[in-house]
Order: sequence, then C-alpha cells, then structure tokens
Amino acid sequence: MPITVVGLDGDDTLWHNETRFKLTQAELRDLLQRHVPDADVERHLAEVEMKNLGLYGYGVKAFTLSMIETAIQLTQARIPAADIEVILGWGKRMLMSPTELLPGVEEALRELSLRYDLLLITKGDLFDQESKLARSGLAQLFLGVEILSEKNVNAYRGILKRRGIKPEEFVMAGNSLRSDILPVLELGARAVHIPYEVTWHHEEVPEESLPREGWVRIAGIAELRRVLVQL
Amino acid sequence: MPITVVGLDGDDTLWHNETRFKLTQAELRDLLQRHVPDADVERHLAEVEMKNLGLYGYGVKAFTLSMIETAIQLTQARIPAADIEVILGWGKRMLMSPTELLPGVEEALRELSLRYDLLLITKGDLFDQESKLARSGLAQLFLGVEILSEKNVNAYRGILKRRGIKPEEFVMAGNSLRSDILPVLELGARAVHIPYEVTWHHEEVPEESLPREGWVRIAGIAELRRVLVQL
Repeated sequence: MPITVVGLDGDDTLWHNETRFKLTQAELRDLLQRHVPDADVERHLAEVEMKNLGLYGYGVKAFTLSMIETAIQLTQARIPAADIEVILGWGKRMLMSPTELLPGVEEALRELSLRYDLLLITKGDLFDQESKLARSGLAQLFLGVEILSEKNVNAYRGILKRRGIKPEEFVMAGNSLRSDILPVLELGARAVHIPYEVTWHHEEVPEESLPREGWVRIAGIAELRRVLVQL
Repeated sequence: MPITVVGLDGDDTLWHNETRFKLTQAELRDLLQRHVPDADVERHLAEVEMKNLGLYGYGVKAFTLSMIETAIQLTQARIPAADIEVILGWGKRMLMSPTELLPGVEEALRELSLRYDLLLITKGDLFDQESKLARSGLAQLFLGVEILSEKNVNAYRGILKRRGIKPEEFVMAGNSLRSDILPVLELGARAVHIPYEVTWHHEEVPEESLPREGWVRIAGIAELRRVLVQL
C-alpha cells in the first residue's frame, strides 16, 4: 500500500532543540561550579530530570524547575537567590528564542506537502510547542498537529484511529529511535530515522532492540522524499 | 436542532482546581511575609503571572516558576534557597494531589453519556491535565479529549471542524464565562455556565459583555441534563 500520510517529529527533526538545552546545561555547570567546584552537575541534573519526569513531563518549564532543584541540592541550599533568578532567566530565554529550522527543512516540507498529507507529531509542553510551530513559518504545510505528552504505541494508535489512517499508509520520520521509530513499527506502520547531532540520554535505545524491517535511516530530511517512494 | 455533543470543561467544572492554587498562594504569602512583612504578595504574584502568561501558558509548572520569581523579587533576592526549595515542593504537591471531583459529577456524566457524545475540553498543561483525567476515573465516559493552550473562538472552531460537529448541535458547559461561554456563543453554539466557588481573576469578564441569548446558568452539574433538554 502506498504511503499517503507522513508524520514528522518537530524537536531536532525540523528545528534545533537539544542544542538549546545543552548550551543552558553548560551555563548551569559553570554557575554551580563557582559554588561547588567538584560537583558533577550534568549527572545530578540528569538524575533530577528523570526523577521529575513522571510529574513534570517534558519541556522547558520542567527543565527550568529541575535546574533550580539541582542548584539548591548541589549547593546544599547555599546558592543565593540572585543566581536562581539567573536560572529563571535562562528558561525564559529558551522559550523566547527563535525557532531555528534545520537545513533543508522548508524546501523538503514544501515538496512533500504536494504529494502527502503531513502531520506534525511532537511531544512536550503544549504551549511551547504551539509557539515554536507558529514562529517556524511551517504551520500552513501541515494538515494537522498532534502534541502528545508521551510518544508511545497507544498515542500513535489513537492518532491513526481518530484520523482514519491505516498503519500501512503511514510513515513517521524523526530523530528519536525511542519515540519516533519503535512505537510506530510496533503498530505495523513504517518509519524513517533522521539522526540529529545530539541525542538526549532519555531518548537513547540500543539499536539491537529495533526490528530489522520497516524502517530506514537517512542523513537528512532532504532525502526523505526519495526514500518514501522506495519504501 | 437538538444537541448531540456536550463539551465539558475540567478544572473547576468537574474537579477542584482553583482552590488548590488559592491554598498554595496563602502559604506563599505567609512565607514571604516573614521576610517582607508589608509586601502585597497576592498582587505581585498576579502581576508576575500575567506578565509570564504569554511565555509560560497555564498550569502548575508555570505557577511554580512565577511563585519563585515573585519570592525573589519581593525579597530583593534575600530569600534563602531553602525557602525556594519549599516552593518547589508546593508545586510538586499540587501535581501529585488527587483529582478531587466536584459533588455529583460522576453520576451526572454517567447519565449524560447515555444520551450525548461527551468531549472533555480543557486548557492548561498537557501533562498535568492528562494525569488529572487519568486519576479522575472519568476517562472512559468521554468520546474524546481536547487539551488546548488557549480556549478562544479559533480553538473551538478547530475542534468542531475536525470532529465534524455543527455549532447548532454543540453545547459547552463550564465555570468560566471567558473561556467556556463567550467564545462558544460567538461560534453560534450554545453554552451552560456552572459557576465555581472561586474564579481566577484572569477568567473574569463583565457579565454585560455576554450576549443575552444562547446560554443559561445553573447551580451545579446535576442540573445539566434537565437544562439540555430545554435548550
């Protein structure tokens, strides 16, 4: 059955995201090491984020709260409030920063939209994601937008069912094996992996856990159109 | 045209919400007045929340960040980090607190669901709202769930269009004149106002700005079924 609907991930597939987080993390490390020179800030922050994931979910607000928690814990509450204000400012700067598209995205989506129905399927903070899409200039290329709290099999199944899409005519393209590829293959749909320069540790899965068939990997979104015809 | 689809707001219509915020606000006031006895904490927090609304959106995470910002500003950064840790804890407690249904909600929804398609239409933080719905035990009574970043005319129009619902067969029930009643009437659909004991200042609109027709006010959700037949 030919593909008729293409799902596209947003963060790190259409626009830069993880790099924003990495930059801010480096600033947090520098700030905290002034108070506790030996602290392993990255590791502690990662632990706090994972611990808070079930309560906060994904996104910049969750990240900002976890940064503040990390700062207080690592300094044993010795960090001055002025420094916490700086951290609040980083969160706001991330939320205000322009949506920086990856190379070739606009052209690729324009061409794809002539042949396929495009759905933006992303997870994270509803408000932040809608705002990023609005500022991306890409909104009118999508037939629909789905912002999920978690990208698992049930969430994808719900989207296809609600929109009357058969798994055989659906392909998902994104940078995360865990969120964009695995659950989609489990549904019997197809997937295209477009790796990004950095992967958030939470999104990493061992390659061996993936089925052999039903997905391909490409180097960039410009190749997506070609590969869809061959799938 | 008879009503076939009933949209229901979640926060302060099906379950308590604003009271959670008010309680935490009172705790913030007590905490900050230990440092700055004369501070008008409520007013300052409300200002910070409004200023941040376009960046943070609605929800507990946004509220927690705004509480921390308020605490730092009002104390001129003299607040100790240990107190900020307490504020972080309040946010988590709010996110973990059980979904406390309003009286009569479960019976009312059970009866309504036999006659009408029910949609939960709520705004706020995606993760928090999904979690509250899951813990409410009501999820299976709804045909669908829509979590919006803002409840305006366009957002309601999008829902009705996507689901193939005519405005004439749709009624929205909720506690906010601004979010649940006004935009729905503007679309030509009908609305039922169910006031809650507390209204967040942001949701208040002058009664005179409402059309005279197309909506009614009831004292509680138990009356909803009766009033729908009469609409």
